[in-house]
Amino acid sequence: MSGRPTYTVLSGGVGGAKLALGLQHVLEPGQLKVIANTGDDFEHLGLRICPDIDTLLYTLAGMADPERGWGVAGETWQLMAQLGKLGGPTWFRLGDRDLATHLLRTEWLSAGKSLSDVCCELRRSMDVRPEIWPMSDQPVRTRIVTDAGTLEFQDYFVRQQAQPAMRSVTYAGCDTAAAAPAALEALSDSALGAVIITPSNPWLSIDPILSLSDIKSKIKNTNAPVVGVSPIVGGKAIKGPTAKLMAEIGIKPSALSIAQHYADLLDGLVIDEQDAGLRGAIEETGIRVEISNTIMRNTRDKIALAETVVALASRLAKARNA
Amino acid sequence: MSGRPTYTVLSGGVGGAKLALGLQHVLEPGQLKVIANTGDDFEHLGLRICPDIDTLLYTLAGMADPERGWGVAGETWQLMAQLGKLGGPTWFRLGDRDLATHLLRTEWLSAGKSLSDVCCELRRSMDVRPEIWPMSDQPVRTRIVTDAGTLEFQDYFVRQQAQPAMRSVTYAGCDTAAAAPAALEALSDSALGAVIITPSNPWLSIDPILSLSDIKSKIKNTNAPVVGVSPIVGGKAIKGPTAKLMAEIGIKPSALSIAQHYADLLDGLVIDEQDAGLRGAIEETGIRVEISNTIMRNTRDKIALAETVVALASRLAKARNA
Repeated sequence: MSGRPTYTVLSGGVGGAKLALGLQHVLEPGQLKVIANTGDDFEHLGLRICPDIDTLLYTLAGMADPERGWGVAGETWQLMAQLGKLGGPTWFRLGDRDLATHLLRTEWLSAGKSLSDVCCELRRSMDVRPEIWPMSDQPVRTRIVTDAGTLEFQDYFVRQQAQPAMRSVTYAGCDTAAAAPAALEALSDSALGAVIITPSNPWLSIDPILSLSDIKSKIKNTNAPVVGVSPIVGGKAIKGPTAKLMAEIGIKPSALSIAQHYADLLDGLVIDEQDAGLRGAIEETGIRVEISNTIMRNTRDKIALAETVVALASRLAKARNA
Repeated sequence: MSGRPTYTVLSGGVGGAKLALGLQHVLEPGQLKVIANTGDDFEHLGLRICPDIDTLLYTLAGMADPERGWGVAGETWQLMAQLGKLGGPTWFRLGDRDLATHLLRTEWLSAGKSLSDVCCELRRSMDVRPEIWPMSDQPVRTRIVTDAGTLEFQDYFVRQQAQPAMRSVTYAGCDTAAAAPAALEALSDSALGAVIITPSNPWLSIDPILSLSDIKSKIKNTNAPVVGVSPIVGGKAIKGPTAKLMAEIGIKPSALSIAQHYADLLDGLVIDEQDAGLRGAIEETGIRVEISNTIMRNTRDKIALAETVVALASRLAKARNA
């Protein structure tokens, strides 16, 4: 292989963006390509909101709020205060700075640009050098079937704070939506060193991407190793409702369950030191395990985890070619 | 006539809103109805912007910025700063608070509400009790024919700061747009005490309203007196490009020219003390003149001018009925 390998990353919001930031430190810009979940996207106040793409953009641009996990650092909330005074909807918080992204995206989309083109423009505006692509330029919408009825994603996740018990999840439009051409290209790259499944929520963030048959079959058929990082550590989620949701659908929250969930895709899985005891059970499913700290508290943690993932991918690729 | 008379006011932005605020102090809420120019309206970043309606709403709600003459008091500009960083358009300044109005209006319009309904909703949200109606629910767009070509209103007025010399002005859509039903009702009110033409720019703010034949003929045929306030004082405009523009189209900037411009409509005109010498020439055209301070520096000035206008209308009505 001439040149450096490329890495194509499947990502949701916060957890995925943290690992992507680690990878951005470890790799050259041209080596890193991210496919973002767009199942959370929605229209709100006439604006097209793409939460996971924005979290990735802001994180890789160094603009993300370090505390909140979403939105822009130093954000202000004058619009929301005024919207509240006027009786408008305030359950989905739109920061004054963040709004620039939504206005430009909505404007460009209505001028006929694809969401992929819009991602390119926004990357350029924010000086983000790794590629970030939506999983599709067409709408796919994650819907949660709960005890309280079927809910649109943001209604479930933000308005109802993931409280209603989930029974199942659907990805409306996934049968007809085409994968974004650039996303498929990233998975077909002859220099592909690995597909990386970030520690985002499998059901809410990664499976929407895999619901696109073109993307799933590219990943199943790639020669490159597919490596993941478990979002479950010591039976709990680092952030968000992953563990609660697994319990609700009758799956024990553990790194082993994550391995089983991705069994048809994964060649390797990084699990946390706390879960070292699960190595044997996971390796029995044919997945190579790497044990590491997977809790990304700071930049050093992100870089270390990114190095671990890349090293695991390299070892798997060498073993395959041996 | 049982009950108090009503007053229907034709208004553009700042000058008109100042007099409307004076009238709001002088009249009961049910007595005051404002028909707003929508020739300045435009679509920007996917938002429907209605500058004159908003200036009226903010002014009558007590929310207007007292210095700037437009927008909301205590406004912040985080969105614009971010939009600039991302390479978006910044020539038309959208405040963080102001944006709530644009988002809600755009959302309601795309849900199928008329602009009149939207005005009602926004009035209610801002606790503005006088009626404010758009001149039409359909688009009418003021375009300026200048030495630099034909320009859309906001391009001429904001981006180019009214610098290009005006040759003429058109109100695109005025032949097909219907007057807003509530605007026509306000002019047909059996209790109508006067139609008031505010000291907004005649060519850019009042004539777009009068370009709607239904509105113009209602005003020509009403039994109520039609009274105006001259926007030209001592040969100059209080604010904005009125005098410059009059010179460009070959009209001497003076209160007499204003009287001549509205000659087919006006029964009375309030002119400034500085222009007292023009009384005779104006009254020769059949228009009754009242001399007053017309420069509205503070609330007291606005109230005094509103009282003068209402008193002139009453005298004209009494003389007519005598």
